[in-house]
Amino acid sequence: MPIVSDSELNRRRHDILVGARRCFAEHGYEGATVRLLEEATGKSRGAIFHHFGDKESLFLALAREDAARQAEVVANNGLVEVMSEMLRHPERHDWLATRLEITSLLRTDPSFAARWKDRQSILDEAVRARLASNAEKGRLRKDVDIDTLVSYLETFMDGFINRLALGDTDNLDEVLKLVEHSIRGTSPRS
Amino acid sequence: MPIVSDSELNRRRHDILVGARRCFAEHGYEGATVRLLEEATGKSRGAIFHHFGDKESLFLALAREDAARQAEVVANNGLVEVMSEMLRHPERHDWLATRLEITSLLRTDPSFAARWKDRQSILDEAVRARLASNAEKGRLRKDVDIDTLVSYLETFMDGFINRLALGDTDNLDEVLKLVEHSIRGTSPRS
Repeated sequence: MPIVSDSELNRRRHDILVGARRCFAEHGYEGATVRLLEEATGKSRGAIFHHFGDKESLFLALAREDAARQAEVVANNGLVEVMSEMLRHPERHDWLATRLEITSLLRTDPSFAARWKDRQSILDEAVRARLASNAEKGRLRKDVDIDTLVSYLETFMDGFINRLALGDTDNLDEVLKLVEHSIRGTSPRS
Repeated sequence: MPIVSDSELNRRRHDILVGARRCFAEHGYEGATVRLLEEATGKSRGAIFHHFGDKESLFLALAREDAARQAEVVANNGLVEVMSEMLRHPERHDWLATRLEITSLLRTDPSFAARWKDRQSILDEAVRARLASNAEKGRLRKDVDIDTLVSYLETFMDGFINRLALGDTDNLDEVLKLVEHSIRGTSPRS
């Protein structure tokens, strides 16, 4: 049996994720068949499922990558900046449209929903930490508690992703400014 | 040929809409087959398609009913009140989960998207008129233009409907208060 180094395994894993992301973006979650995933990743189904177990796990690994990357942006600049980046670089977020599709899955498959929620917790925590830190610095409105602000931002982001996926981006730039000010309790003109 | 009165035709049309709404809520848009629509409405496929042409038109007729009803609430109490009602009476809005499903259709089927947008225009106009009227009465923040406020409210509502459909309603009551205040430029504690 050939010996495969850890770095080689990591590289293969990375290649699969990159190809799979493109495949899900193009064909949707249901549409990304094993054959299409093989084509997009240049790997056999054996190799893909050796690394990720099944298609659901592969998809959730991508969701975790996103959540981790977004959590970094949140730590430095907040969740509104995550949305601004989506708006500025839609091509980097092509696959967000699959979010529309998996919402039905989240609704009907409790085990998928639990795993999805788990992947998102890193983002939730980053949003909460950012808000708490801004509150300490006096950059947050004081008349609404942090739990409400977290739910507000995350609910808004669901709708925002919907709009992006539909290509309906009129005014979204200005809308994001309003969301930022509504969190801070300030005015765009002040 | 039997003569059927207008009121009888209207009654049949109404029965079909009521049954179809229940059917879409239970089985989703794709899942609501013609056979299931027949069962739910107690009408033959011939009768159903005599009134509505095809399944898409039947679905869009329901969307227009909703938009018209919501537009009334908007005129009197605003779009936040539409969302509050959804939160208080989720059982009346069971079928909103089909919105998650049709978002993919909206994305991939331009003709469906155009017809859907047309059905929603009555709601858009009501939201705009309500905001304009509130602006005149000095009940609106002055530092953000009305187009931005309309997009803000409608984008938020998309995310809100997502949350409801997922049964994830924590804090949404407080979140709606924040949305209302962010439109008015006021504070929940003032």
